[in-house]
Amino acid sequence: MAKRVRRRSQKVGLAPGTLVHVGEETVQKVSITVMEYGESGLVAERVVNAEQLAPPRDGAAVTWINVDGVHHVEIVERLGTAFGIHPLLLEDVLNTNQRPKVEDFGSYVYTVLKMLSLKPGGRVDSEQVSIIIGDRWLITFQEGKAGDVFDPARRWIRENRGRICRMGPDHLAYSLIDLIVDNYFAVVEDLGDRLDALEEQLLTSADPAALRRLHDLRTELVTLRRSVWPVREVIAGLQRGGSALIREPTQVYLRDVHDHTVQIIDALDAYRDMSAGMLEIYLTNVSNRLNEVMKVLTIIATIFIPLTFVVGIYGMNFDVMPELRWRWGYPVVMVGMVGIALSMVWYFRRKRWW
Amino acid sequence: MAKRVRRRSQKVGLAPGTLVHVGEETVQKVSITVMEYGESGLVAERVVNAEQLAPPRDGAAVTWINVDGVHHVEIVERLGTAFGIHPLLLEDVLNTNQRPKVEDFGSYVYTVLKMLSLKPGGRVDSEQVSIIIGDRWLITFQEGKAGDVFDPARRWIRENRGRICRMGPDHLAYSLIDLIVDNYFAVVEDLGDRLDALEEQLLTSADPAALRRLHDLRTELVTLRRSVWPVREVIAGLQRGGSALIREPTQVYLRDVHDHTVQIIDALDAYRDMSAGMLEIYLTNVSNRLNEVMKVLTIIATIFIPLTFVVGIYGMNFDVMPELRWRWGYPVVMVGMVGIALSMVWYFRRKRWW
Amino acid sequence: MAKRVRRRSQKVGLAPGTLVHVGEETVQKVSITVMEYGESGLVAERVVNAEQLAPPRDGAAVTWINVDGVHHVEIVERLGTAFGIHPLLLEDVLNTNQRPKVEDFGSYVYTVLKMLSLKPGGRVDSEQVSIIIGDRWLITFQEGKAGDVFDPARRWIRENRGRICRMGPDHLAYSLIDLIVDNYFAVVEDLGDRLDALEEQLLTSADPAALRRLHDLRTELVTLRRSVWPVREVIAGLQRGGSALIREPTQVYLRDVHDHTVQIIDALDAYRDMSAGMLEIYLTNVSNRLNEVMKVLTIIATIFIPLTFVVGIYGMNFDVMPELRWRWGYPVVMVGMVGIALSMVWYFRRKRWW
Amino acid sequence: MAKRVRRRSQKVGLAPGTLVHVGEETVQKVSITVMEYGESGLVAERVVNAEQLAPPRDGAAVTWINVDGVHHVEIVERLGTAFGIHPLLLEDVLNTNQRPKVEDFGSYVYTVLKMLSLKPGGRVDSEQVSIIIGDRWLITFQEGKAGDVFDPARRWIRENRGRICRMGPDHLAYSLIDLIVDNYFAVVEDLGDRLDALEEQLLTSADPAALRRLHDLRTELVTLRRSVWPVREVIAGLQRGGSALIREPTQVYLRDVHDHTVQIIDALDAYRDMSAGMLEIYLTNVSNRLNEVMKVLTIIATIFIPLTFVVGIYGMNFDVMPELRWRWGYPVVMVGMVGIALSMVWYFRRKRWW
Amino acid sequence: MAKRVRRRSQKVGLAPGTLVHVGEETVQKVSITVMEYGESGLVAERVVNAEQLAPPRDGAAVTWINVDGVHHVEIVERLGTAFGIHPLLLEDVLNTNQRPKVEDFGSYVYTVLKMLSLKPGGRVDSEQVSIIIGDRWLITFQEGKAGDVFDPARRWIRENRGRICRMGPDHLAYSLIDLIVDNYFAVVEDLGDRLDALEEQLLTSADPAALRRLHDLRTELVTLRRSVWPVREVIAGLQRGGSALIREPTQVYLRDVHDHTVQIIDALDAYRDMSAGMLEIYLTNVSNRLNEVMKVLTIIATIFIPLTFVVGIYGMNFDVMPELRWRWGYPVVMVGMVGIALSMVWYFRRKRWW
Repeated sequence: MAKRVRRRSQKVGLAPGTLVHVGEETVQKVSITVMEYGESGLVAERVVNAEQLAPPRDGAAVTWINVDGVHHVEIVERLGTAFGIHPLLLEDVLNTNQRPKVEDFGSYVYTVLKMLSLKPGGRVDSEQVSIIIGDRWLITFQEGKAGDVFDPARRWIRENRGRICRMGPDHLAYSLIDLIVDNYFAVVEDLGDRLDALEEQLLTSADPAALRRLHDLRTELVTLRRSVWPVREVIAGLQRGGSALIREPTQVYLRDVHDHTVQIIDALDAYRDMSAGMLEIYLTNVSNRLNEVMKVLTIIATIFIPLTFVVGIYGMNFDVMPELRWRWGYPVVMVGMVGIALSMVWYFRRKRWW
Repeated sequence: MAKRVRRRSQKVGLAPGTLVHVGEETVQKVSITVMEYGESGLVAERVVNAEQLAPPRDGAAVTWINVDGVHHVEIVERLGTAFGIHPLLLEDVLNTNQRPKVEDFGSYVYTVLKMLSLKPGGRVDSEQVSIIIGDRWLITFQEGKAGDVFDPARRWIRENRGRICRMGPDHLAYSLIDLIVDNYFAVVEDLGDRLDALEEQLLTSADPAALRRLHDLRTELVTLRRSVWPVREVIAGLQRGGSALIREPTQVYLRDVHDHTVQIIDALDAYRDMSAGMLEIYLTNVSNRLNEVMKVLTIIATIFIPLTFVVGIYGMNFDVMPELRWRWGYPVVMVGMVGIALSMVWYFRRKRWW
Repeated sequence: MAKRVRRRSQKVGLAPGTLVHVGEETVQKVSITVMEYGESGLVAERVVNAEQLAPPRDGAAVTWINVDGVHHVEIVERLGTAFGIHPLLLEDVLNTNQRPKVEDFGSYVYTVLKMLSLKPGGRVDSEQVSIIIGDRWLITFQEGKAGDVFDPARRWIRENRGRICRMGPDHLAYSLIDLIVDNYFAVVEDLGDRLDALEEQLLTSADPAALRRLHDLRTELVTLRRSVWPVREVIAGLQRGGSALIREPTQVYLRDVHDHTVQIIDALDAYRDMSAGMLEIYLTNVSNRLNEVMKVLTIIATIFIPLTFVVGIYGMNFDVMPELRWRWGYPVVMVGMVGIALSMVWYFRRKRWW
Repeated sequence: MAKRVRRRSQKVGLAPGTLVHVGEETVQKVSITVMEYGESGLVAERVVNAEQLAPPRDGAAVTWINVDGVHHVEIVERLGTAFGIHPLLLEDVLNTNQRPKVEDFGSYVYTVLKMLSLKPGGRVDSEQVSIIIGDRWLITFQEGKAGDVFDPARRWIRENRGRICRMGPDHLAYSLIDLIVDNYFAVVEDLGDRLDALEEQLLTSADPAALRRLHDLRTELVTLRRSVWPVREVIAGLQRGGSALIREPTQVYLRDVHDHTVQIIDALDAYRDMSAGMLEIYLTNVSNRLNEVMKVLTIIATIFIPLTFVVGIYGMNFDVMPELRWRWGYPVVMVGMVGIALSMVWYFRRKRWW
Repeated sequence: MAKRVRRRSQKVGLAPGTLVHVGEETVQKVSITVMEYGESGLVAERVVNAEQLAPPRDGAAVTWINVDGVHHVEIVERLGTAFGIHPLLLEDVLNTNQRPKVEDFGSYVYTVLKMLSLKPGGRVDSEQVSIIIGDRWLITFQEGKAGDVFDPARRWIRENRGRICRMGPDHLAYSLIDLIVDNYFAVVEDLGDRLDALEEQLLTSADPAALRRLHDLRTELVTLRRSVWPVREVIAGLQRGGSALIREPTQVYLRDVHDHTVQIIDALDAYRDMSAGMLEIYLTNVSNRLNEVMKVLTIIATIFIPLTFVVGIYGMNFDVMPELRWRWGYPVVMVGMVGIALSMVWYFRRKRWW
């Protein structure tokens, strides 16, 4: 089955609330995992299919449903019905061109984030992650492009490590957001390393390919910044949003992730300044080198032009040209020309043109 | 009847509230459609003329009056009298240079938006849409340039599809705004496709026509951004405006359209950055190519200038030039010149000028 | 009597509240017009001299005093005393370098605006208009440069047209501000027409005079924007200022003028972007043309330089040059040179330098 | 005694509140003037030395102490003790690198401003003025660089002119600030005059010295703007600061000075735009002139290069060159070369290269 | 033991609150100093090891614990347990890439700052300083790169100088922050001196090395600004934060440090503008010099090209060339060529090309 990409414009004319997938189909089969855990650790963990989805039972403290792949409209719809979720939210889950944002629907809070990952060729790939925080449940949707980034959280729950099992779905949501933001550091540091390597290259040679690579890195920096910038607002919105679903102790943790996003944006700004400086140096290098070439060549040409004129004079065929008859005419002219050349070199040097 | 364009400056000196049409006359005949519908679906749908316009009857839940063409001052005036609308609002309806805005007049809310459509040649055309949201009625004015963009909404009402019939005129207004904003996506994606195509072209050739096309696209991007930017504020104003006419459930929907406008602005910003990068690459390409040409040509010239000087020497007509008499003089000079040329090539290569 | 221009710096060292005229003296004689009107229309209209100025009588609803020319310090002073106006306000009336602003003095509101008019040569001229809104009176000061822009308002009062006579001095003030802002449209549209005309010219020829004209238009755009920008704040200040002198129904009207100023600023921004794009295109045109010239000329030179070297060889006077003796030497060399020239042309064409 | 300049970094490691003078020592002897005045005018005026300083007596309404020269730490310290002034404030008085600011210490308000004056060479010199507004006293500190700018205020008090004697120390402070800001106008207008003169020069010649002068003026503009900008905030802070020491009637006056600073900033912005435009025009002029030179010269060279090739051909020494033997060979070649030259000129003209 | 640098990305996948050191290991051994002091001066001063750390005893008024070196996770952890500090705060202490910030944890306030120091080569080095302000204790962490910057504070405590001993830990925190900010002045002034020296150099020669140095200085300026900017917010946050731990009298002092940071940012902005102007002048110098060279050389070439053509003519070998036979042919041609050269020089001079 080939990948299909649906675009936003195909939704024009459809009634609001009509569920349509917008984006790439990245996995063949949608997989749904349900984890139930309480203060004493993991209660149950199952891989289910869409028919088995049901609102959380009373027993477990927290139910976490993770859906990998969002192109199956029916599965998303069924989940929405089971948990009483607003159709507009489901539309946003299906539309993978969403901007990071947080929305408070009263009985649940909806957050969209972008997961970044490094593709082999060095390009940054982005994947939409939706998190719905309920009273005692949490639903997450991933596109399934970059493997499952939530694995560490699953391990912590299974091993009942840290605070994750003792706290509610808001703390689980924080842990997942923290995992996503931690991944940003890896992407940003990789970018920084490539910039450093490129700087070395640009300072030693004026290779146009390096310029192209710099241009690509700058484009990536801008894209990255545009992805991370709203994440900061999203986390600030979660922290200060005033929803009762985000409890007091989780807010300190969210402030911490917020600081991390600010750090990332700072780093990206520093890289942007650095790359601007590199471009400036590169262009100065290129033009300096060209200027140097042009100048030396022009000087050589200018020295020989008057000399060529002189030899032209003595190539004229006038009958009466007394110099031509002189015994020492030839050597005198040759010495004279050497004199002209030397005095021009001296003049250029004195004027600091050479 | 030829199109006439009236300009804003022709209103100078007229008393405020004097109704004058400002803009293009795009349709020959103004057409007025009235739709009445309630929870059970469509009640009545008529095409009327200006004389038949009257405030909504008690029976139907919602009355929607749509006017195509705003150059007939009398029709707008009659509508204004029938529904008790402020003369300044009517002035704004007639003036098609309005900036998108929302104004709360207490018993009705007035919104001006711009409808964008793609003209065959790829240019974006804009048309003013006015929406007046009353308690149980809704009046819309279109310029009539780009066909009737509200058709899908009419179909939903006729087929009693979605929520549209079960809710008030505020939800109808939302549906119409959503249709307008959905159309923006089509325009923006088309622009993005043309930018992508142009990028390919710019990277392979330094064609001045491509530069001109890039310039046109950038102008369009800026115009588009200027059209969409205030729409965002307008929708935010409707949503948070605090008018009792915009009911609670509609506000969630308006927040959704608001997100769409933010997405569009984000896309436009990304395209702007992309086009700036393309311009930079194009200019670097052009200057690199010219530099390369100049450099190689200058080098060729520089190699031959000293050689021409040498042959000039042996073209002199001095009586006493012993070299000219030598048997091997000619071949020696020729070999010497090849040597000079080779050493200059070697020097240029070592200096990396070539 | 010659025009005299007094500058702000001449006030250094004078005690605050000392009345001094700063600016051009534009009319020889200051003229003062008094209009009294009520709901039933115009009551009295007189041209008075400074001695006859007195606070409004009880009979008429609104007294409007208009002063043309502000260089007569005594007249302004006398008016100030008669109406109990703060000396700092009078100082501002006399100083024609005032920035548009609104100030609430409690029992009256003071507004300074700039009236723009087109001078014959296409230059925009600006004139300061001061409006003092009292409880039942209104005083206006004009510099008198550009004729009387308030004539239409006078006509509406005389003919008792529109709402102007039925409402207070705040509505009269609104009408005057509306007349001023309407005039801005004329100035802005004229600028737009000149920009359009210039664009045509710039695209067809790279005339330096056109560049100069573009530069002038851009300077005018910036000046205009600087004049109109604070007007927007002024009108917003009047509208939302909370002064009891600006009554409720007038505020809707002021909101309308406010929208007009926003429209004008939008248009000016669009023109600025357009002019920036024009400059870019012009400079690209100029450099493209020069590059083209340089390239073709350099190519011609480069083709002939090796050929000149070749003919130089056979101009040498060596005794032993076998080719010179050959029967077909001359034609062979000529054909060879044609070959060299053609292969260089072919090479340049293949490299796409030509 | 030589001038000594102390720098801020010399304070590193000193305990906070340690009083150290930072800046230039500009006058040899610190002079202290005390003026006491009430509603009936001047009561007493003395030049005192540091030992005689004492808090104001009960009799006079306002006591104004002016200190010229701030490098004598002991004098400042003694004043601080006598009037109960916070040591951090005294530190700021001594440090002449202070940024303009206003600080409310409860029982007194502290303001730092910069006094600007024109040095003979056209450079703008700045001097720190500190004003401490107490309940019934006012202390001012000047560096003493530019003579005493407060002289007019002293005259007004002596002659009991204007409102100055009838109001408190807040109005005296306003008068002094007004004198300082009035001086800004002189500096700004001088700058404007020099810009106007320079514009004339730049448009007629492309003199590098003019560019240098433009650069200097732009630097001065930026420095000036940086000095005036915080003054605006300072005056706004005084006006709206809510300190009981700044009484109601003085606030109207402060609003007036505030407007003056806004006017000055507006003028500086206009000059900055103007200078940017001048730079643009200058650079375009320079490059246009160079392009013109290069183009004409290259054209001349290009015409003669093929001609030189032609004469080279007939300078070859082949035995068999029939043209050389023709009777009309020479004139035909000469006419042919004229033809080549003319057709090249025609070609260049048609291509509009010339 | 070699220095090891741990990077932020190595924390990906670790549970939040896991303590890991991120940054350089700069000192071999972590040293911990405890100072206890009250109103009467220093009570006790000890160097302790991690095991001896304990919450403050009742006796002394203030306990100050300073830790030099933060790469020993266990020491930080033990301190955290002893004083009941939140694990996220400890994470921030260990991660030396922190952005300056202030966080209020209720029973203590946490501040991160950057200490700047000048390295021998002129580079600015930055080191993270963490300050935790408790009720009666203060904990500080330094990386230990640049010696102990807190020494002066220790001396003031030992000698019971100034207010430091009479006030709480908030005043001690202020004193430490003041020491850090005072150090910024030294760094900024050093940068200013180097800029001044560089300006001299750039104006006299167009040395590419100077450009490189300018580029380095500008990078440093940007880095510095990015370090100092958040410090301003941090101090404002401390001052206005509303924490009961920062007492009233300390707030006046913090306002003073806040002013210092604003002064530093102002100075950095001025240096940035200055360096931008220097770059502009340098580039104008370089291009002026190149233009001058190119112009003179082109003029020389252009004068000799027609002359070379002329001598080429008389080098032709036509049998019938009457001029060649004339007696005065040679001198006439020579004089003619001098005439051509002179008239070209005259033409160039008149056109002001030379």
